[in-house]
Amino acid sequence: MINNIRTDLAVEAKQIYEEKNKEKIPGVDIKEYYEEDLKITEVAILDDIGEKVMGKPKGKYITIDIPEVSNYDSDTLDEISGALAKTLSPLVNLEESMTALVVGLGNWNVTPDALGPKVISKLMVTRHLKQFIPDSIDEGIRPVCAIAPGVLGLTGIETGEIIKSLVDKIKPNLIICIDALASRKMDRVNRTIQIGNTGISPGSGVGNKRMEISEKTLGIPVIAIGVPTVVDAATMANDTIDMVLEQMIKSSSSGSEFYNMLKSINKDEKQIMIREILDPYFGNLMVTPKEVDMIIDCVSKIIANGINIALQPALTLKDINKYIN
Amino acid sequence: MINNIRTDLAVEAKQIYEEKNKEKIPGVDIKEYYEEDLKITEVAILDDIGEKVMGKPKGKYITIDIPEVSNYDSDTLDEISGALAKTLSPLVNLEESMTALVVGLGNWNVTPDALGPKVISKLMVTRHLKQFIPDSIDEGIRPVCAIAPGVLGLTGIETGEIIKSLVDKIKPNLIICIDALASRKMDRVNRTIQIGNTGISPGSGVGNKRMEISEKTLGIPVIAIGVPTVVDAATMANDTIDMVLEQMIKSSSSGSEFYNMLKSINKDEKQIMIREILDPYFGNLMVTPKEVDMIIDCVSKIIANGINIALQPALTLKDINKYIN
Amino acid sequence: MINNIRTDLAVEAKQIYEEKNKEKIPGVDIKEYYEEDLKITEVAILDDIGEKVMGKPKGKYITIDIPEVSNYDSDTLDEISGALAKTLSPLVNLEESMTALVVGLGNWNVTPDALGPKVISKLMVTRHLKQFIPDSIDEGIRPVCAIAPGVLGLTGIETGEIIKSLVDKIKPNLIICIDALASRKMDRVNRTIQIGNTGISPGSGVGNKRMEISEKTLGIPVIAIGVPTVVDAATMANDTIDMVLEQMIKSSSSGSEFYNMLKSINKDEKQIMIREILDPYFGNLMVTPKEVDMIIDCVSKIIANGINIALQPALTLKDINKYIN
Amino acid sequence: MINNIRTDLAVEAKQIYEEKNKEKIPGVDIKEYYEEDLKITEVAILDDIGEKVMGKPKGKYITIDIPEVSNYDSDTLDEISGALAKTLSPLVNLEESMTALVVGLGNWNVTPDALGPKVISKLMVTRHLKQFIPDSIDEGIRPVCAIAPGVLGLTGIETGEIIKSLVDKIKPNLIICIDALASRKMDRVNRTIQIGNTGISPGSGVGNKRMEISEKTLGIPVIAIGVPTVVDAATMANDTIDMVLEQMIKSSSSGSEFYNMLKSINKDEKQIMIREILDPYFGNLMVTPKEVDMIIDCVSKIIANGINIALQPALTLKDINKYIN
Repeated sequence: MINNIRTDLAVEAKQIYEEKNKEKIPGVDIKEYYEEDLKITEVAILDDIGEKVMGKPKGKYITIDIPEVSNYDSDTLDEISGALAKTLSPLVNLEESMTALVVGLGNWNVTPDALGPKVISKLMVTRHLKQFIPDSIDEGIRPVCAIAPGVLGLTGIETGEIIKSLVDKIKPNLIICIDALASRKMDRVNRTIQIGNTGISPGSGVGNKRMEISEKTLGIPVIAIGVPTVVDAATMANDTIDMVLEQMIKSSSSGSEFYNMLKSINKDEKQIMIREILDPYFGNLMVTPKEVDMIIDCVSKIIANGINIALQPALTLKDINKYIN
Repeated sequence: MINNIRTDLAVEAKQIYEEKNKEKIPGVDIKEYYEEDLKITEVAILDDIGEKVMGKPKGKYITIDIPEVSNYDSDTLDEISGALAKTLSPLVNLEESMTALVVGLGNWNVTPDALGPKVISKLMVTRHLKQFIPDSIDEGIRPVCAIAPGVLGLTGIETGEIIKSLVDKIKPNLIICIDALASRKMDRVNRTIQIGNTGISPGSGVGNKRMEISEKTLGIPVIAIGVPTVVDAATMANDTIDMVLEQMIKSSSSGSEFYNMLKSINKDEKQIMIREILDPYFGNLMVTPKEVDMIIDCVSKIIANGINIALQPALTLKDINKYIN
Repeated sequence: MINNIRTDLAVEAKQIYEEKNKEKIPGVDIKEYYEEDLKITEVAILDDIGEKVMGKPKGKYITIDIPEVSNYDSDTLDEISGALAKTLSPLVNLEESMTALVVGLGNWNVTPDALGPKVISKLMVTRHLKQFIPDSIDEGIRPVCAIAPGVLGLTGIETGEIIKSLVDKIKPNLIICIDALASRKMDRVNRTIQIGNTGISPGSGVGNKRMEISEKTLGIPVIAIGVPTVVDAATMANDTIDMVLEQMIKSSSSGSEFYNMLKSINKDEKQIMIREILDPYFGNLMVTPKEVDMIIDCVSKIIANGINIALQPALTLKDINKYIN
Repeated sequence: MINNIRTDLAVEAKQIYEEKNKEKIPGVDIKEYYEEDLKITEVAILDDIGEKVMGKPKGKYITIDIPEVSNYDSDTLDEISGALAKTLSPLVNLEESMTALVVGLGNWNVTPDALGPKVISKLMVTRHLKQFIPDSIDEGIRPVCAIAPGVLGLTGIETGEIIKSLVDKIKPNLIICIDALASRKMDRVNRTIQIGNTGISPGSGVGNKRMEISEKTLGIPVIAIGVPTVVDAATMANDTIDMVLEQMIKSSSSGSEFYNMLKSINKDEKQIMIREILDPYFGNLMVTPKEVDMIIDCVSKIIANGINIALQPALTLKDINKYIN
C-alpha cells in the first residue's frame, strides 16, 4: 500500500518506501554514479503516481553524499564544491547576462537552521557592480544578488512575501534557495546535499516554512539546495523503537503468541504514544552533533563555492576567491 | 558665511556652525530640557536657510544624551527606553490598528555598524500573529513587522530597493529606521540618540547609504533613529590638529609673525594633507572603544524597548518583556 | 536491590531509585521547601549505604527548580539569583578577607557546555584590585579570582592539573566550580540548579571530566554548582522505549504469554541494542532546545549574580552591577 | 641623542631612530632577505647600547611582511605559514620528545586583542594523547599543550602567575607566546609578524601586560610571536600632527621667524597637549580596519599553522590538518 512518507530527502523517501513495501518504487527513476569519490544519486519523479508515493512534486532530486568535513581540509572542500557545481550547472542554464537571486532560508539564531544565511555571507555578489561600475568588472561576470530573508517569527513577514516582492522589483531570471533540512537518520546529517528543480514546499526545512517557493508562485525557475542538519528528536525516538521492536520480532519464534502480538503492534498508536511523551517539547527539540557550529561553517563554504562556480562559468575558483577577498 | 558641515548629528552641525561663525545659527530653532536626568535637545530646521546651513532637510531632530551604559544596570536601560518612547510617541501618531515596519540598517558583520540589525532582533514583532492567529492576541496590540536588509556589498541590491519593494507589497503605515552614525567627537560615541522625522539621507551612516529613505521616496512617514557608534579616523586626526594649532596660537603673542602665520594656515590645505597621509585607509578605518561589542548590545536593547513601548501603548514594558519571552 | 544510577543530579538519582525499588531510599535524608515561588530540595547523603545507592559521595546536594527564563525578564533573573545566594551563603562560610577562586568548567566552543566559562565572564573579580590598588576599593570587598580552564582536548592539560597548580600558587580559601550537566529528563534541562559541597567527580558533566576536584584533592572546600543543559541522546531513546514498553505491558492482560514476554525483556540487552544503533554517534550527539544560546546566556547570568551576592555580603546587587559596569 | 622609543616592533624602533637621528642605529645588526615573495627582516640587538637605543632586550627579532590576507585564499595562507615555520624552526631547537607549551595572551572579548586565544583554538594539541593513549599516535609527534590565560581584569590573577604555576607543574621545555601588538603605523597593522627569542616585556601588547614572561622569569626559553592589530589612537594623532608640522616647516623659508618657531616647538609639550585632549579615552580607544573580525581569524590561522609545522617536523601540513580534523 502506498503511504505518505514525511521526509525532506527524496532519496530517504525512496528508501523508506522500498523497505516497507519490498518493491521498487513506482513512477520514479533512479540513477547512481560517482563523481570522483563522491556518490551521486539522481531521483526523478516522473508522474502522478511517483508524486503521491514520494510526497513530492514531479522533477529532479540529485543527492551528493559527502564525507565528514572540516575547515582544515580545504582541498576536500574545494573538490565537493566542484562536484556540486557540475550538478548545478545544467539546472542553472542561463545566458551570461542573466541575473540570479540566491536566497538563504532559515533562522540565523539557531545554528543548524543558519545554513542558508551563512551561504549568503560567502557568495560572490556582483549585481551592484554590473549596475553601478560596469566598466570595472569583467564582461563575463554574471549579475548575482543574494538575500537571507529570516523567518516569520523574526520579521512578522512571510518569507515568501519578501521573496515575491523582491522578484517583482528586481526581476531576476533564476532563484537558487538554500535550506537546512531535517533527516530521519543521524548518518545523513551534514553528509548529504540535495539539489532539486522543484523549489521549496511548505512545511519543509528545520523551521517549518509556510509558503511554496517555486516557479508556480514566482514565475521563474527555482533551484533548491538542501542539507539535513538535524534529526527531529521524535523521529529519532520513533526509529530507534522500530529497530528495537524488529529485533524483538526476529528473536521470537515465528507463529508464537509473542511474535504475533509484536507484529500486531499498531504503528499509529505507537507514534501517538511517543508524541505524548515528548509532546511538551515538540518542534523545539533538536538532535545535533556537538561540533555543529564548525560543521555548518564548512558546509556553507562548500555550497557557496559550488554556487559561485556554477553561476560564474567564466571564472576559476581562484579568481572567485580573489574577488571575494 | 554659510559652510556646509558634514556630520550626521544635527546637534553637532549646529555647534560647529556656532563655533565657527560666532553667531546663533539662522533658520533653526533650539529647545533644551530634561526628562528625568536625561538632557533632551530639540533642533527644528525651519526654512531653506536652515536647510542650507545645517546640510539637512527641514524637520525635527531630537537628541537624547545618555550616560555610559552597561548590561548590568537594567534599571538605567529601562529609564532611557522610557525617555526614548516619550520622544517617539508624538512622532509615531498612528491609529491602533495601523502597521509599523521597523528597518535596521547597517552591516551585521561590522560591530559598530550592526546596531540596526541588533535592534531588529530585540523587537516585539506581531504582524504575523495579527494575520494568522488574531484570536490569540490582544486586540490592542499593533501589527509590527521588521527587517534588517543588509548593505549593498552583501546583497548586491540597494537597501532602498529592498525597502521600497516591501513597502509596496505589505503596505505599512509608518517606517522606523535605525542606523549607526559617525560622530566628529569621541565623547558623543554611544552617548547620544538622535530621533528625526525626515528619514535617512544618502551618504549618511557608518557604511555610506546611497538612496534616500523618506516619505518622499516611500509615500509613508519615516522616523529615523540614529546613534553615533564610531568616529571617523580622519575626522579625529583633523579635530585634534585644530586643537593643537589653536593652543599654539593662544600661546604665541598676538601680532607676532608666528601668530600671523598660524592664523593664516589654510584649513583646506591642512585637510588635504591629512587626507593624503591617511588616504590608503580612508573609509576603512574606524575608531571605537574597546568594549564596542558590549556597548552596541546595550544600546540596541535601549532602542528596541523604546520602540516597543512607543508602538504598543496598550502594553507595559513588563508585558512586552513577557511577550518577547 | 541496590543499583548504581548514572546521573549527575542527586534529586534524579533518588527519584529513579524510588521508582525502581518502590521504597524510600536508604541512607539519604530529603527536605523540601519553598523560597518565594521556587521549590528547593535538599538531598543529604548521610552514610556509606547512601553513597552506594546514590553513586555519589556523602554530603549535601541542594536543588532549586527554576521557571523558564529569558533575558527580558530581569526581575525574575534577580529573584532566582537571590534564592541561589541564600542557598550558597551557609556553604561559603568564609571570613571577609578570605579569597575565593571560581572555576568555570566546560568547553566554550560547545554552547551547552559553555555554561561555566560564561559564568566566569559575568563575575565580579576583585583579587587584583585588593592586591594592586587596595586603597581604591572598599575594605568589605572579598578578593575573588576566576578562571575557565578549558577541556583536555583544547589544552592537552588535565583541568584538574591546571586548578591544582593555581591553588598551590595563589592559595585561595575556597573553590566554587560551575559545570554543565546531563539530565535524563528533558524537563529538567535548564530548569534545575544543583549546589553541592562535595566537589566534582570524574566522569560527570557534559564533556566528561577525568579528575576529581574536591577538598580531598585540593585541600580546600569545593562547592559545585551544576545545571543540566543537555539530554544525552542515548538516554532519551532508552527512557522513551521504557515508557513505550511499560505502556504495552499495561495494555496486555496480566498472565498472558505476551505480558510475560514483555516483562522478561532483558533491560541490559535492550540497552546494548540501543547503544549499537546509536553507537557511531555516542558521546557526540546532544539533544537541546533550539534557543540554547539564549538560555545558556540567561542561566549564566543567574548563577554569576548568585555567586556575586554570596561572596560579597557587604554589597547589594545594585552595587555589584555598578562595579561590573 | 638617544631617545627611548615606545613601540612593540623592533623594526619600527629601528626605523624611527634612523629617521630622527639620520644615522645607522648603533649596537644593532640588520639583515633583509626574501622567502618566496615575503620580505624578512632580522634585527639583532647585540649589546647594551643596542638595548638602550631600541628599548628592548638583547636578542633576535625577525619580521615577516605579509600581504593582505583573506579566508578565501588558502594557498597564500599556507605559504605564509610555511615561511613562519621556517623562521621559527631554528629558534625552537628541541629534541623530538620535548614538550612545548603555547600561550595565547590577550582578551578574547576585544577582537583585535583576541589573536592569541584564537591561535590556541587552532593548534594541534597532543600532550594528553602522548600521556593517556601513547600507542594510538605516532612516535614522532611532539607533546604540545596550550593555554589562553586571559587578562588580569577577567581573572583577577596575573597572567604571569598563571603561566609560572603551570610551568612549575607540567614542566615544559619551551614556551611560545602569541600576543597582539600595537603599531605606530596603520600600514603595519595585520601586515607584519614579529618573532623574537627574548620573551614578552611588561607593558607591551594591546592590553598592557604587567609581568615579564621570559627565560629569566620562567627558567625555560620563551619565543614570542607578535602581530600589530591596532594603532593606538593617541599615537596616530601624534604622528599625523608631526607630519603636518614637518610639511609646514618645509613650506616656510628657512631662517624666517615662523620657521624658527616651528622648529622650536617642544615635542614633549605637544605630546602632553594631545594626551590632554584625548585623555578621557586613553587606553580605551583603538583604531582598526572594519573587517577586523575576518582578518584576525585569518592571521590566527597563519600563525597556528606556522607553529604546528615548526613543532611537528615529522608531519606535513596535510597530516596536521587531518589530525585537527
